[in-house]
Amino acid sequence: MGDPTAAQELSDLSLNDAASASHVPNAEFSDRVPIRSIISRTDGGSGLAGQKARIGGWVKTGRKADKDAFAFLELNDGTCAGNLQVIVEASVYELGELVSTGTCVVVDGLLKIPPSGTRQRVELRAQKVIHVGPVDPSKYPLPKTKLSLEFLRDFVHLRSRTNTISAVARIRNALAFATHTFFNKHGFLYVHTPIITTSDCEGAGEMFQVTTLFSEADKLEKELIQNPPPTEEDVEAAKLLVKEKGDIVSQLKSAKASKQEIGAAVNELKKAKDNVSKNSHTSRHLAEFWMVEPEIAFADLKDNMNCAEAYVKFLCQWLLDNCLEDMKFMADKFDKSCIDRLKLVASTPFVRVSYTEAVEILVEAVNGGKKFENEVKWGIDLASEHERYLTEVKFQKPVIVYNYPKDIKAFYMRLNDDSKTVAAMDVLVPKVGELIGGSQREERLDVIQQRLNDIGLPPEPYEWYLDLRRYGTMKHAGFGLGFERMILFATGLENIRDVIPFPRYPGRADL
Amino acid sequence: MGDPTAAQELSDLSLNDAASASHVPNAEFSDRVPIRSIISRTDGGSGLAGQKARIGGWVKTGRKADKDAFAFLELNDGTCAGNLQVIVEASVYELGELVSTGTCVVVDGLLKIPPSGTRQRVELRAQKVIHVGPVDPSKYPLPKTKLSLEFLRDFVHLRSRTNTISAVARIRNALAFATHTFFNKHGFLYVHTPIITTSDCEGAGEMFQVTTLFSEADKLEKELIQNPPPTEEDVEAAKLLVKEKGDIVSQLKSAKASKQEIGAAVNELKKAKDNVSKNSHTSRHLAEFWMVEPEIAFADLKDNMNCAEAYVKFLCQWLLDNCLEDMKFMADKFDKSCIDRLKLVASTPFVRVSYTEAVEILVEAVNGGKKFENEVKWGIDLASEHERYLTEVKFQKPVIVYNYPKDIKAFYMRLNDDSKTVAAMDVLVPKVGELIGGSQREERLDVIQQRLNDIGLPPEPYEWYLDLRRYGTMKHAGFGLGFERMILFATGLENIRDVIPFPRYPGRADL
Repeated sequence: MGDPTAAQELSDLSLNDAASASHVPNAEFSDRVPIRSIISRTDGGSGLAGQKARIGGWVKTGRKADKDAFAFLELNDGTCAGNLQVIVEASVYELGELVSTGTCVVVDGLLKIPPSGTRQRVELRAQKVIHVGPVDPSKYPLPKTKLSLEFLRDFVHLRSRTNTISAVARIRNALAFATHTFFNKHGFLYVHTPIITTSDCEGAGEMFQVTTLFSEADKLEKELIQNPPPTEEDVEAAKLLVKEKGDIVSQLKSAKASKQEIGAAVNELKKAKDNVSKNSHTSRHLAEFWMVEPEIAFADLKDNMNCAEAYVKFLCQWLLDNCLEDMKFMADKFDKSCIDRLKLVASTPFVRVSYTEAVEILVEAVNGGKKFENEVKWGIDLASEHERYLTEVKFQKPVIVYNYPKDIKAFYMRLNDDSKTVAAMDVLVPKVGELIGGSQREERLDVIQQRLNDIGLPPEPYEWYLDLRRYGTMKHAGFGLGFERMILFATGLENIRDVIPFPRYPGRADL
Repeated sequence: MGDPTAAQELSDLSLNDAASASHVPNAEFSDRVPIRSIISRTDGGSGLAGQKARIGGWVKTGRKADKDAFAFLELNDGTCAGNLQVIVEASVYELGELVSTGTCVVVDGLLKIPPSGTRQRVELRAQKVIHVGPVDPSKYPLPKTKLSLEFLRDFVHLRSRTNTISAVARIRNALAFATHTFFNKHGFLYVHTPIITTSDCEGAGEMFQVTTLFSEADKLEKELIQNPPPTEEDVEAAKLLVKEKGDIVSQLKSAKASKQEIGAAVNELKKAKDNVSKNSHTSRHLAEFWMVEPEIAFADLKDNMNCAEAYVKFLCQWLLDNCLEDMKFMADKFDKSCIDRLKLVASTPFVRVSYTEAVEILVEAVNGGKKFENEVKWGIDLASEHERYLTEVKFQKPVIVYNYPKDIKAFYMRLNDDSKTVAAMDVLVPKVGELIGGSQREERLDVIQQRLNDIGLPPEPYEWYLDLRRYGTMKHAGFGLGFERMILFATGLENIRDVIPFPRYPGRADL
């Protein structure tokens, strides 16, 4: 906006003229008007010109203009991606206190059409400043310069004020509500499962142990508390490394080595542990993450695939219908193709191939010259590179792979008649690979007992689960959708730590 | 139903006549028709007579009739409180395998109007039995005799098959979806807060500690793992008891007592611990529970009260609109007044009294002869008996008490101008007392720092929270609704362990 024009426009409307103006309705549980309800109207808010409104938000950018006669504030209140421009005259408030990025400002003002040539379709002319939450710009950790997502991870309590993280928060919120809406619509019941458990679910991770007052927990070192568990792969790597280095220490000790020698070996051991920590700083894993886990009674693998496909399509369409402004922001800043990807998934039938067919396709690709880091042969667990080849290169749409080798899947998945595969399925999508894993569950008591026995799991911890098969068993199926993966898929972001409000990973459990 | 009549009716319709009958639509992700979509129709399902349907469910009661010519099965599939009566002829299936309570049966059949004089408006005549999940009645833990809720707590994995627990599950599900719907409608964002934390929130309980692979956790005794933390009061009682008994052991040890003497004292110590465990077996507390915790930007205490009142009213109306059948079941079996209570709360403005007024009312009651166990005077934290007197006796409707003495409330609640009270509020409802606790939060950095200092809390763990006040602070408010308390309130049940699917309390973290 050219300042002279603005100055001229400002004089067009006396503040006193506004005494009888009507007021834009407030949010129901607050005395301010959400900025979204102004600028996200189809007319961009221009239809509200002439009305009074109380606005609260945080200054994105602020500057004094026209020889400090007034200030332009770009105000954002988190309700939408866009800002509302607020103009404050020097006679209304001390402008210097308003313009720092991060300052909270609540103003009463009059909405008006800005001079032609500006991007905004409406702006607010302040009549009174109701509240200022100041910021010392020399100390505020989030200046208005462009900040990397990595930098922001050190300020998780403040980063939701940034354009990107607030857009992600709104997209995440929309996906959560879409999830509840979808499953409610289809007659599912939401079951609140416990956090505290003595079951080591699927044996996929070392079990967390919760201890308290009477426990020996006081003896635990503080650093351990702040180190949530690494992923399964990391645990394996850690075990190996620590074992190797540990062996050196033992050998030295048993060889009655000098304190110095043992000290050096212990240092090496510490470094090995550090390496493990660093290794688990991946962009795809968290110590704490969210899964959406529907289970369907009287359903088989086909029903399960139908449900998973319908759910993912519903989520994609929901974002297109309800979050387009935030999606456009993500497309603009991070991933040009993210909106097209949502449209593709919402409208295209998913390809369904058996694991055996999938392996044949991959072998064919290798024979045709495609290089994979991991060898392809029947029996392997598909690696991310394989999954992404199938969905991104071969089919260029979502793919459901089903009937996996039993040896790479959990004991509760239903054994197929070939006795080699189980009725498991993974949903693969472009950008993230595996989004969903699921299966028809084994409903036959004798088969599941045999499976437990074959893989050497003791039956006792599973007796409650076996009871469900023992008394009135029926066919049933279910799956899990990695909620953070869904958000990565939707937004095009690369790091899982940027799509959860308070990520927990080694060394990070503060707040 | 009179058997002879039924036998006569059976012959009215040949199975072969049904070959061309239309089929009631299946659930979308299953090949069976939910029983709800038949019997919860306004016509009770009678309009579907003559149509084919595949039904799956568990036998509530089964009996053979007419000299074993056929069997009557009351089938329930969890989608609603009601059962569908299924009639199977001996020529269709071996009847003895179908009639045990708990048996899962999937049948294809024809819907027909039962003989007059029966309660059902429609029943299913089996044409083919598709699946049977058998039950050995000599081993099944949930026979068809009436079972107490306490008994069922030993079978949390099976108890959802009972009428009461499945009704509670549907009510809980409805309240959860209502919650998401309400807050979405009012522009709130759902923020997934972390489970793992190093903050001891509000200092209200000893912090859980999460340990894993590299930790010393292996040293912890298994019994400790299975003992989640008791409540605050229990912790205090426990400390006292264990300390006392522990002192005896120490004294014996230092006095070089005999092994026997020490052994006897250790036994006493164990008994003390057991007592503590028993004490924490209360009907109102769990080691793990769910809270709904909205926070509102640019809101004060009045906005907060408005939001809390609107939310609770919305929940009550939702149950009346969407769960009436289950509510009628609860009214019939447990609490005659539960539906009236929902209607009262949904339609009546909540009374709002200050804490000071509330204490005056209670003192007046005492002067009038009312006996309370806990003394009433300004400064006390209101006990449950006081809260229930206010809401059940004095006002006979929901009451919001606000402006509590600062010394009994958390440091982050906003200090009022009198410097004696804070802008806190509790919502009290008949039957459970406190349902919601909340406050306007302290937005002034200097005041909150002073409060931390006054109560002796170190500022370091709260620096992230103080940052939110330090940079762009604004008025804001929020509250927490105890979700299990809301379900107790709605259903009229007495024990919190019966309204959460997998309750965790001392000694119970299995499954």
